[in-house]
Amino acid sequence: MSGHSLQDRYAPDTRCFGCGPANEQGLRIKSRVEGDEVVLDWTPAPHHQAFPGFVNGGIIGVLFDCHCNWAAAWHLMNRAGAASPPFTVTAEYAVKLRKPTPSTGPLRLRARVVETLDDRAVVEATLEADGSVRATCRGTFVAVGPGHPAYHRW
Amino acid sequence: MSGHSLQDRYAPDTRCFGCGPANEQGLRIKSRVEGDEVVLDWTPAPHHQAFPGFVNGGIIGVLFDCHCNWAAAWHLMNRAGAASPPFTVTAEYAVKLRKPTPSTGPLRLRARVVETLDDRAVVEATLEADGSVRATCRGTFVAVGPGHPAYHRW
Repeated sequence: MSGHSLQDRYAPDTRCFGCGPANEQGLRIKSRVEGDEVVLDWTPAPHHQAFPGFVNGGIIGVLFDCHCNWAAAWHLMNRAGAASPPFTVTAEYAVKLRKPTPSTGPLRLRARVVETLDDRAVVEATLEADGSVRATCRGTFVAVGPGHPAYHRW
Repeated sequence: MSGHSLQDRYAPDTRCFGCGPANEQGLRIKSRVEGDEVVLDWTPAPHHQAFPGFVNGGIIGVLFDCHCNWAAAWHLMNRAGAASPPFTVTAEYAVKLRKPTPSTGPLRLRARVVETLDDRAVVEATLEADGSVRATCRGTFVAVGPGHPAYHRW
């Protein structure tokens, strides 16, 4: 990976709200591989808050959704021995907000694939801030084929 | 309600990313009461897409999170016979993306409280576009008291 995020390496021109490097109004997350985890460090802007000092729970969901989707795509790519990730979409994701997430510093997300079927992966992830887990997520992400609107989107 | 959204009526100066009327970079949803449902019509901007023509699943989660939270607050307010809604936060929410959501026109969300405990409500919601349900959500929203950072946030 040599320092590149998955997004910059495989989809540099995309404009997804959560993960598109080319979307200047998006979150532009940069997910990187660390062993069997995919890790993200991200700092919220003031307009990502729910109320002063704390991150909106929906924004936390955007981070989890896109970051876990990339963890799934990376895993499915390696499992298939492919040179590039498949086009994956979210089937479902569930977020638990365990305690308020401060918006004053960086957040760290860690995602890991916990189940794999032929065309899909189940991913679990945590979000940490100030040294403790604030939120968790579990989602299912599916590789789509020709005919789906998400096919060949990058 | 006389035409006012819940947000404009009860929290006009707030800046939440999803529902704060005063956040010019937020989604600024306007939830209104229709019988026993809370309804939202909202049109995405180009930067809310996942890929051309379709809405990002995380943005769909933001809509569900804030809209269902307001449905819970409205319900708990009426149940208590209060003059204003309690300060509610999201405990958890789960989103199912059943088929791609087009970004070319308005989306309609409908939310309904399905369970109530003393301090919390469980809400189920649907998102429709072009006449069919594209996504669903179920979430739990909790009224917080003094000492919680979300207390008296509006």
